[in-house]
Formats: sequence, structure tokens, C-alpha cells
Amino acid sequence: MVGGGDGAFIGAIHQRAAALDGDWRLVAGAFSTDAERSRRSGERLGLSPDRVYPTFDALIAQESALPADERIDAIAIVTPNHLHAPMAIAGLNAGFHVFCEKPMAMSLAEAETIAAAATASGRHFGLAFTYSGYPLVEEARLRIARGDLGAIRLVQVEYLQGWLSLPIDTDGNKQAEWRTDPARAGLGGCLGDIGTHAFQLAEHVSGLRVETVSADLATHVAGRRLDDDVGAMLRFDNGARGLLKATQIAAGEENGLRLRIHGEHGGLEWAQMEPNTLILRWLDRPAEIVRAGGPGLDAATSALLRTPSGHPEGYIEAFANLYRAFAAAIRGESDAAAFPGVPDGLRTMAFIEAVIFNAQSDQKWTRVGSGEYE
Amino acid sequence: MVGGGDGAFIGAIHQRAAALDGDWRLVAGAFSTDAERSRRSGERLGLSPDRVYPTFDALIAQESALPADERIDAIAIVTPNHLHAPMAIAGLNAGFHVFCEKPMAMSLAEAETIAAAATASGRHFGLAFTYSGYPLVEEARLRIARGDLGAIRLVQVEYLQGWLSLPIDTDGNKQAEWRTDPARAGLGGCLGDIGTHAFQLAEHVSGLRVETVSADLATHVAGRRLDDDVGAMLRFDNGARGLLKATQIAAGEENGLRLRIHGEHGGLEWAQMEPNTLILRWLDRPAEIVRAGGPGLDAATSALLRTPSGHPEGYIEAFANLYRAFAAAIRGESDAAAFPGVPDGLRTMAFIEAVIFNAQSDQKWTRVGSGEYE
Amino acid sequence: MVGGGDGAFIGAIHQRAAALDGDWRLVAGAFSTDAERSRRSGERLGLSPDRVYPTFDALIAQESALPADERIDAIAIVTPNHLHAPMAIAGLNAGFHVFCEKPMAMSLAEAETIAAAATASGRHFGLAFTYSGYPLVEEARLRIARGDLGAIRLVQVEYLQGWLSLPIDTDGNKQAEWRTDPARAGLGGCLGDIGTHAFQLAEHVSGLRVETVSADLATHVAGRRLDDDVGAMLRFDNGARGLLKATQIAAGEENGLRLRIHGEHGGLEWAQMEPNTLILRWLDRPAEIVRAGGPGLDAATSALLRTPSGHPEGYIEAFANLYRAFAAAIRGESDAAAFPGVPDGLRTMAFIEAVIFNAQSDQKWTRVGSGEYE
Amino acid sequence: MVGGGDGAFIGAIHQRAAALDGDWRLVAGAFSTDAERSRRSGERLGLSPDRVYPTFDALIAQESALPADERIDAIAIVTPNHLHAPMAIAGLNAGFHVFCEKPMAMSLAEAETIAAAATASGRHFGLAFTYSGYPLVEEARLRIARGDLGAIRLVQVEYLQGWLSLPIDTDGNKQAEWRTDPARAGLGGCLGDIGTHAFQLAEHVSGLRVETVSADLATHVAGRRLDDDVGAMLRFDNGARGLLKATQIAAGEENGLRLRIHGEHGGLEWAQMEPNTLILRWLDRPAEIVRAGGPGLDAATSALLRTPSGHPEGYIEAFANLYRAFAAAIRGESDAAAFPGVPDGLRTMAFIEAVIFNAQSDQKWTRVGSGEYE
Repeated sequence: MVGGGDGAFIGAIHQRAAALDGDWRLVAGAFSTDAERSRRSGERLGLSPDRVYPTFDALIAQESALPADERIDAIAIVTPNHLHAPMAIAGLNAGFHVFCEKPMAMSLAEAETIAAAATASGRHFGLAFTYSGYPLVEEARLRIARGDLGAIRLVQVEYLQGWLSLPIDTDGNKQAEWRTDPARAGLGGCLGDIGTHAFQLAEHVSGLRVETVSADLATHVAGRRLDDDVGAMLRFDNGARGLLKATQIAAGEENGLRLRIHGEHGGLEWAQMEPNTLILRWLDRPAEIVRAGGPGLDAATSALLRTPSGHPEGYIEAFANLYRAFAAAIRGESDAAAFPGVPDGLRTMAFIEAVIFNAQSDQKWTRVGSGEYE
Repeated sequence: MVGGGDGAFIGAIHQRAAALDGDWRLVAGAFSTDAERSRRSGERLGLSPDRVYPTFDALIAQESALPADERIDAIAIVTPNHLHAPMAIAGLNAGFHVFCEKPMAMSLAEAETIAAAATASGRHFGLAFTYSGYPLVEEARLRIARGDLGAIRLVQVEYLQGWLSLPIDTDGNKQAEWRTDPARAGLGGCLGDIGTHAFQLAEHVSGLRVETVSADLATHVAGRRLDDDVGAMLRFDNGARGLLKATQIAAGEENGLRLRIHGEHGGLEWAQMEPNTLILRWLDRPAEIVRAGGPGLDAATSALLRTPSGHPEGYIEAFANLYRAFAAAIRGESDAAAFPGVPDGLRTMAFIEAVIFNAQSDQKWTRVGSGEYE
Repeated sequence: MVGGGDGAFIGAIHQRAAALDGDWRLVAGAFSTDAERSRRSGERLGLSPDRVYPTFDALIAQESALPADERIDAIAIVTPNHLHAPMAIAGLNAGFHVFCEKPMAMSLAEAETIAAAATASGRHFGLAFTYSGYPLVEEARLRIARGDLGAIRLVQVEYLQGWLSLPIDTDGNKQAEWRTDPARAGLGGCLGDIGTHAFQLAEHVSGLRVETVSADLATHVAGRRLDDDVGAMLRFDNGARGLLKATQIAAGEENGLRLRIHGEHGGLEWAQMEPNTLILRWLDRPAEIVRAGGPGLDAATSALLRTPSGHPEGYIEAFANLYRAFAAAIRGESDAAAFPGVPDGLRTMAFIEAVIFNAQSDQKWTRVGSGEYE
Repeated sequence: MVGGGDGAFIGAIHQRAAALDGDWRLVAGAFSTDAERSRRSGERLGLSPDRVYPTFDALIAQESALPADERIDAIAIVTPNHLHAPMAIAGLNAGFHVFCEKPMAMSLAEAETIAAAATASGRHFGLAFTYSGYPLVEEARLRIARGDLGAIRLVQVEYLQGWLSLPIDTDGNKQAEWRTDPARAGLGGCLGDIGTHAFQLAEHVSGLRVETVSADLATHVAGRRLDDDVGAMLRFDNGARGLLKATQIAAGEENGLRLRIHGEHGGLEWAQMEPNTLILRWLDRPAEIVRAGGPGLDAATSALLRTPSGHPEGYIEAFANLYRAFAAAIRGESDAAAFPGVPDGLRTMAFIEAVIFNAQSDQKWTRVGSGEYE
């Protein structure tokens, strides 16, 4: 992994996501331009010190020198945008697969150089357009692809955030700082950071291509060097019309990515903040609520699920919190969070017995745990 | 790990949850009473063959024989209920920490023998009352503990499932089969399987203890040997009144665990199917929507989060789907799912440039990707 | 009308509801035990002074003395509970139809005397179990009656209010005062006031009868003379199980009447605070959202609607607010609320023309109202 | 009233809305260009035959001839758009106040002639921009006017309908027919019919003025003569940016009018299909749910409410359904809908007594209505 040192937000997400299915193991990294910070991050991650590199070049050079069965298979690039192209190209040329954060590069021209390197190297290049990974986004795409909605007429996509409502980019917020710096973010601010997600999702799910755009960019926060608010009208290749809204100054909004697509027969709606639900509306019958794990899903969608019906993905994290607290307790950490244990077990068993005794008796009120029913 | 062989649902959840933070690594297991199935499961999980055991006893015996720094630290028991006590006690006595599925045991008396073993061994015993692990459940608990709602008057908890609406327990559904078998599930059916979750959540969050209960148990599906529907009135130790509803025959329901608690000044509501939201209602001001990652959270709650504001826990899984597809492509699997890559990257860069050109020009409609604006 | 003088809440609702379809006209009344207040109320309502009576007895006596084609057809009783029986019986005996607030009377025995009077008089007796009047409550009833859900197994009804969380009944709140006074409210407090609504709705929609009940009554506010919190387990005549919760001390709750009924094949959910939506959940297919005015409604339900699809009932009130402001302006009232008029009309016409001009031109930004496009 | 004869949708809404508060009484009308249909409509509405006119001109002429205290005060114009101007001008010139459906006229120029007539006549002219009448729309306007959100940066308004998804305008649907006929609807189709509502609401609530617009009009249904889909980017006079979407071909949508406005400190959201809720989101604290009748409302908002907290406006209609059924029963109509009466009254009283007996006894299950507890 390149980037993602302690404190970085998206790096930790990549690490957990890669670990979730056991397909990947993090074995090497150059986590920061600060060699010492890189070392500490690697240590915290339990990596062997000799594979925690002070620079990206060192990583490429030394990993390439390892025997094929020992060296890394792929590189995850989670740095600011200006490093995507040079690192991706170097990584591909060195024979590694590359999984890269979006946007792809600083400009279309630069992105095309990555494309060329990927082709030449015969290596895989992945981009973290994460929202394509939600099971019900795939369900939406499949429904449209098989014609359930008929010919598509409308595509509305919006991505509302509020975290840049104040000038935090000049108040030392690292995340905000590089995202509003043309030298590190590229041509677009909000446009590149989340406008690209909205656009990719709209084309990915609709299966259509935007032919022309009419747009309005704004920078609402004084002194900000890149756009923080995007509005655009879209015309798709089949004649469908669209609206795209992406903003980072919608004060009070969290991560409001929402897609609505309407065709001749009906429409669908998916919202990232409730990702396990897909609403289908119909011209001639009641709307349907399609749920992750529920009836009516395409097999390809079900293959993307890890939890049973009604258990939001997030259930795994809840579970993980218990495992984490349990480990902390075992390590004897003084600030270990509480976790359910013996007392909870005894109480719930007492409850089971009290309920059964009461339900089978004429006794109206039965004491829980008193044993009078044993 | 004991149990959780291929096909088991909760086993895979435990494995992923334990892996999420890097605190745990699965190194040994007796995954099935079928030695061959256990072997296959271990192989799929990438375990060393000599630590995949045919039986639980073999696991205890051989792991105990390993040097302290090589043997397992803890055992996760994800078997049907009747095995919890013997295995937990054996594990504790052998000096291992134990993390066990709920309910704790077949009866209160049996649970007390586990409690005794835990005390005697000085080892930790954890129970998978997963819902306690949700960040906003902790927020709810803290709010009540610090008196935000005033004295608690009402506690309503419900857990609605519909998956046992039909007699699938006699149609070869393994999950349903053992849960409705008194010999393996214990005294309670629905009561033990999800009623215990509802009860534990109610006491855990309210900080109160149920003193007496008046209950009604029903078995709606003919031939079923345990209850599939529970209703109960609760009286808490502070005089608060409560209702508990747990059912597995509410046809059409998924995993509807919902907790509502009201005090003198206001009430709160949390629903497992939208776990990142906590509603607080007040007598004298508008209701508030407390969100994972949003403003107003207690520091202890924030410590339980892994994703930024507005990214449902589940975002990690969406991310993991991309990593999984990426790995499958690299392994050259013919059925590898698609993942965003070069084409998505180029399209989105073209979009960025088209928007910027259009927004800065008087041109009304600008072609995306035509290059006419370069 | 009897009762419902100025300041009374339910009286004004009856008056507006009766006026809505033109079936009824309010022509006479005894609006208050305070003759002067009764007079003022009648005056405000534009009644002829000679038909505004100081007492109920005067109303009965003098209306009965009028020619058949002049006298009132029916009496609406909107007084506290203790007056329902004497007034209803007197009204029926005098040959008038009676429409009465709930609960019917102070006790079952008293209610039976009304029933006898209704039978003897051959007059109609209506009770304001208002929630039966919602179109989607009728849809729910019809769906169950025609077997869509299969045999009913579960009935959950709850009615949560918070307005009696504080001892306002002893602080001069008239509404609270009589509702908590056994002499005027009857045997039940919360039980009679809203528990009856919940119970009637549950039996009405399910088509089942509650055979036995196991209940818990509480009075959480010190000094209150009647219950303010009800919990009950229900057993229905077909074996279905139910829970009923009615409370007026759920701080922060408004008027949370919610009904959920599950059968063999699926379940339905209706909530009074979003009365135009009925959720149907199914064992074998996605849940459906049935909407007032939307596809799939029974003709009998549609007959109960006054607004087109997507216009909540409430749209009429929004409309009425404009008419009210318009009338106030015409009357030259200084505090007349604003209403849309000429300026709104001109602005919107200018907008239409600007949009059309812009959409048909290559001009990117067109000024609204400048006339440059004319 | 002009227009609104039997079968017309908006006419009946006007009639009910005007009747709701007793400020207005419908006494005269020219309900249809078909004199016989006009007569029948007047008869059904219980009007005196001599004030049901065959033509609008006859209405003006004969009402003007009546003594001042007998003639109508105001005229409600609920005809297709092309008649608004001639009728409004004639009505104003004849000295009547005019309440007119939107859009104001066929063109801005024509609207200006109405404006001139209103000024010259000194009469009031009201326009049915109904959504301004919702209590929580007023609350939203007031919150912004008093600066709660800080300077406004974003205004997003959308109005999604699906009823014109099919070519019903050529299949004899009267509503669709005139709305898509340039000769009767004017310059805009969807734009004039609902785009104007969206635009008026956006300016009304934000208190801002749209300075320039960049728009896209589409006609998705072949053969339709006017637009059925509108998209527009807006720039407001204070620099705020906006998006407006209005469409009548979003298959499956009902009447999805939704307004979202964001300022420096937070944002608000109101949706017409849940009109009693206003969501306020904040940069620095949890979002709030402001409810009709709930705490925190401005007095001016409360003055617009007719129902108590938690009773959706629509509660009045539910009530009215009971009154209507009661009247039909009294009239002896064979198809009179059922309404709650004696049986419901007796059952609920029996329930009250059973609950009280059970709650006060040790009896676990008490029969409802058996009298065993008396």
C-alpha cells in the first residue's frame, strides 16, 4: 500500500476492506512521505520492518528484487491525486497490479498515460469507485439492463456533503487541504472528489453514456481555490435527460449520494445512506421495496452479500466491536470496552426460564431470576 | 473456532468480524462434526492442515500440547446451543479464553456451571450479544446512563422475523432444524434464539433490571416442537413498564429488532435495520436525529466507528466487493465480477474536463470526451 | 351540537369535518354549560341566536317543538364522557339521530342503556372512532377480509402519546383535567381515551375478536387518579396473539397510533401519522407500498378519497389556508396572512418565458423577467 | 365559481377548501360551458337554480344586477388556462374579488393585463399556489427569513409526477388533453402546470429571486405538443445556486414536490407528500424534525393548523368520512358505508372493564365481554 499512514481516513478503509474476505493480506507499504511515520504505521499494522519502505521508489525497487513467490502481487494507491499517475505507471511497469483511489489522475491526458501503461503491462488496474460495490447498486444496474423499466428517460444523481461549508481547508484540516489544492487535487475540487462518483454511478447503473453537459461550478467559501459546488444538466446518448448535483457545502448533509432513474414503465431509487434498500416504483402497480437478502434479488446481487436478510452490512462491524473489546480485555488493557459475558448469559437464561414458567402457569407475574419457578 | 464449517451462516460472520481489525487471526479449528467437512473448511480458510481438527476434543488436546507462544489464545464457539456448555467449560479449564454464541446454554443451571468454570479458570468468557456492539446502541445506553431522558418509565423492545412462517424446520433447513429441536436448542425456540437478544438489549441500554414478567408463548406452525412467537409484559426494578415481542413467524419481516425507551423528559428509538440512526424525542423541543459520525456523539461512541459520517457501516463491505472482484480477475477466474477500472477512469476524467470547460464558457452544451474543449 | 364551545379542540374538528362534503349544516347547539359562552360560540359560528341554547334540555325541548322540516336531524355529542349516556338517550328518545364522541359511556352497563335506547328509537347512533375513517385503514381491512394475508397470526397495535407526561391535569389544562377525573372520564384514563381507539382499530381491521386479555395498568404521574399507561397481551378468537400498548406519558411522542397485522403469507403496517401509506410485506416477494390514490386500491377505498394521487389529505387544508387569508384580506383585516397573488403570477409567467427562450436558444444563461427574450 | 363542474378534479377541491372554515359559501356558478352540465352541477351542490348560470357572461351580468348585499363577493376561476385572463379581467372590472387557478395566464404579457385590471379595480386577486398554504412551508419561510440557516447558498426544488408517462392526452383524458394543448395551456406544458409551482415555492420560501436560468425542455412522449419534462439550473440574486426539476413522465411518481435549501449554518427539507414534517439539518448539531403541532413552531405557523399534534391534516377528512357515512345511512342509502356505532361502543366498553379487572386481579387471562368480572 502506498499512502494510508496513521491518521489517513481512506487508507484504513482499504486495509479493512481488503482483509474482509481473506483474499488479500497487507505485507508491504510506503505509508507516508515521512519515513518515520511510515515505519510506525507499518509497525502498528504488524508488518515485517524490512518491508515497510521510506519511499515509493524504494518499495518498487526492493519488492521487484524479491523472488516472484515472495513479492507483492498488487499495489493499492491511496495518496492524493497528483501521485496517482506516476505511481500507477511505475507500479504497472514493474509488473504489479494496481488498485487506485479516484479520480484516476490530474487530467484526462494524464489518465490516458495510465491507460497506456496498463495495456502495455498486461496488468490489472482497479479504481475505487466504491459505490459500484454495493449489492443493491448491482441489482439496480441489472434491473435496468434487463429492461424492467423500459427505455430510460430520466437520470437524477446527487451527492450532497456539508463538511467543506467552513474554510477548514485553511485551518489545517489535512483532508480538506489537499482536496482544495489544484496542485494535488487536479482540475476539479468537489467535481473531482465526489462529482466523479456521481457521474460514474449514473453511467454505470443506467448503462447509458452522457453525450453533452451544461454545467455550473461555484466556489462558495471565500479564498477556496477550487469549486465546492457543482450543478449540471446532462443529455444521454439515448435522449434521456439528467441532472447531476454534487456539493460539499450543503451544511448539515453527511454523504448524501442518491440515484434516481426513470424509464417508460417505472423508476428506481437508491440512496447510499440506506444502501440495503432499493425502491422500485411502477406506473401500474404499487411501489416495491427490494431489500438486501430479501426476496426477488438477482443471483449476482446475492453473491455480493455477506449478511443474512435484515442484517445491514454493518452487522459485521458490530460483531467486530465485540471481538475487539474481547481482545483488549485479554490483553489486559485498562480502557478495554465492555462486552457481553457471564452476567448477560445468566440473566438471559433466567429470563428464558421465567417466561416459560409464566406462560405455562396461571401465575400472572413471575419473578425473573428468583428461581421460584425451578 | 468450533463449528462454522462451510455453509454455516454465523461462522462466516465471526470469521470476518474477527479479521476486521487485525486483532485476531484464525489459526485452528474443528469446524464440523464431519471430519472431512472440517478439513475442507480449514483448507478453504487457508489454515495449516495440522491445526484443522476432526473433533473438539482433539483441538483441546493438541492445542494444549503446543508451546504457549504457538497455541491458540481463545476459542470461538459457534455450534448449536447444546454444545455451548461442555465446550466452553472444557476450553476454559484448558486455559483458553472463550467467545461463545448465545444463548449461553440449555438452561440457567447449565449456564451457572459455565460461570463457575470461567471464575475458576480466570479466563475471559464473551457472549455474542452482537447488537450491543452497534455504535448507536452504545450512544443510547450512554444517554440514558447520564440522565438525558430522566427517570425511565417505558421500555418497548421488539424483534420481528418471518423466516419460520412455514414449516421449513421439517423440510431440511439446517438452521431451522436445530433451532426448533429441544435437544439442541434448549428450553426456548424463538425465545432463546432472538427473545434473549431483545431482553439483553432492553436491560443493557436501559440500565434497568426486569423484576417480573407476564408472558404468552405460542407455536403457530403445526408440529413445531418449540415456541415460534413470544409476547411478554415486563415490570422493571424502578417501576418502569415494558413490552417485549419476539416472533419468527411475522411473515415478510426480516430482522426487525427495535428498541424504544421513554423517560420523564423524552424518549429514544433505535432500529437494527437502520443502525446508524438514533432518534431522540423531547417533550419540549423538536426530535433530533443522532447519526453515526455526526455531531453530538459521545467520544465512547465515536471510538466504535470505522467509517466517516454518512458512510453506513457496510461501506467497508462495498469496498471489499471491489477488492474481491479485483483479486478474482488477477487469479484469472472466468466468473470474476466486473470492477471499475481504466474505462471508468477515462470517462470520469473526460467528465471533469467537459464540466469545467462548459462552466467557464458561454457554450450551452459541451460534448463529454470529444476533446473539443482541450 | 352539544359541547364544542370556543376553545374546545374536538368540537371544531367535528364542525369542519361535518362541513366538508356539504352533507351537514350546523344550525343549532348548546355549546357550553356556560350559557354566555354558548351564545358567543353560536354567534361566531353564524348561527341564528334563537337556536343557540343555554342548556341541552332547552335544545331538546325547543328543537322538538319545531316543524319536522325545520328541526335538526341529528345531534353531535362532543362533551366529556359522563354526559354521553344521558344526552344520547334523551336525544334518541326525542327522535334525533346521535353522533357521539368515544368512549361510548362511563361503563359497559351504561353503554348498554344507550344501545337499548337506539334500538327502541329506531334512530342511528354513530361513534367517533375516527381512525376507521382513513381510506387506507379500509384498504387494510379489505385486504385481510379477502384473505390476502392468509390466516391471521399476530396483531400488534400501539397508541403512543406524551402530552400527559407532566402533571398538567392539576395545572389547569381543561383537556387533561376531565380526562383524568373518574367522575367525568369513567373507569379508564388512557385506557378509555386512546386504548379504546387502539382496541377498536385492531378488531375492526383484523376482523377478529379479542377473547381474553392479560393486562397491566400504570399511573406514572404522582397524584393522577386514573391510569396513564396501558399494556396488554391479547388472545383472539382464531388463536392469533396480540399486543396492545397505549400510553399518554411517552414523552416526545405525538399521536403514534400504529397497527401491524401478520398472517401466514405476509403482514401489513399502517401508521396514523403517515395515513396515506399502507405497507404490505410478503413472505415470497418484495414489500409493497400501497398509497392513497395510487394503483392497486380497492374501489371502496378510492371512494373515501378526496384528493388525487400524491396529494396528502391535508392538501385541502393547505388550500383552505389560502381561501381563509383571501377572505381576511377582503374583510380588510390588518393581520390577514399573505396569499399568492399578482406578483407571484407575474414572476411565474416570466419564469415560463425565460425557460422556454433559454431552452430553445444557445444562450447559456437567460435573465428571468428582463424581457430580453421577448 | 367558474368551471369545476361535475367530474372536474380541482373544482371539488376548491369547493371543499372554501367550505372548511365557514369563511366562504358557494352561492352561484357557471360550472361548465355545457349549460345542462352546469345546471346539474349546481343542483348537486344545492345552489338556488336561478344562480346557476349557463355562461360566465350571464353570471357577471346577473350577479352585478343583484343588490350589493345579495350578490357574490368573489369569483373562483378554475377553468383551463386560456380563460383565466378574460374572466379575471371581466370579474375584476365588474367589482368582484377574484381567486384564480395557476398559471396566471397564457403569457407574461397577458398576466400583466390582469395585474393592471386588479390595480384599476382595487379588488383582490388571489392565485392558487396551494403549496404556500402548508403550515410547514410557512415555518420554513420564517426560519430562513429570520436567518436560522445563515446566508443561503443552495436551493433545490423538484416536482416529480408520472401521470403523463403514456400518451393519455390523445386517449380522451380530459385533464391531460387541455394541459398538453398550446391553445388552452399556453406556452408551457409541464413547465406551466407544475414547473410554476416549483419555481414559486423556491422563491417564496427562500425569499430570493432567480436572476438567470439555464434550462432544458424535453417532450418524451411522441406526438405531445408541449414539454413534459423540465430541467433548469438557477442563479439567484444573492449568488446562491439552484436546480429545478419538474417532470410529468417520471413513471411511478405521484406528486413529488420537494424543496431543499441550504445556507451557511444548515439546511432544511420539506416534501409535499409528508407535509407535516420539516427537517432541519445543522453543521454543528444533530438534525431536528420539526412537526406540525409539535414544539418549536413559530406562532404564525401554528395559526395555520387545524388539528392537534400528531394528527395529520387529513384527520379531518377521516372524520368527514364518518359523518358522510352517517348521513348516507340516515338518508337510507342502500350503499351507505359502514360507520362505528353501537357494537363498537359496547365492545370497547367491555374491553375497558376487562382490562381494569385483569390488571387489578391475579387472574392471568380475563375474558372480554363475558361479564365474569362484574
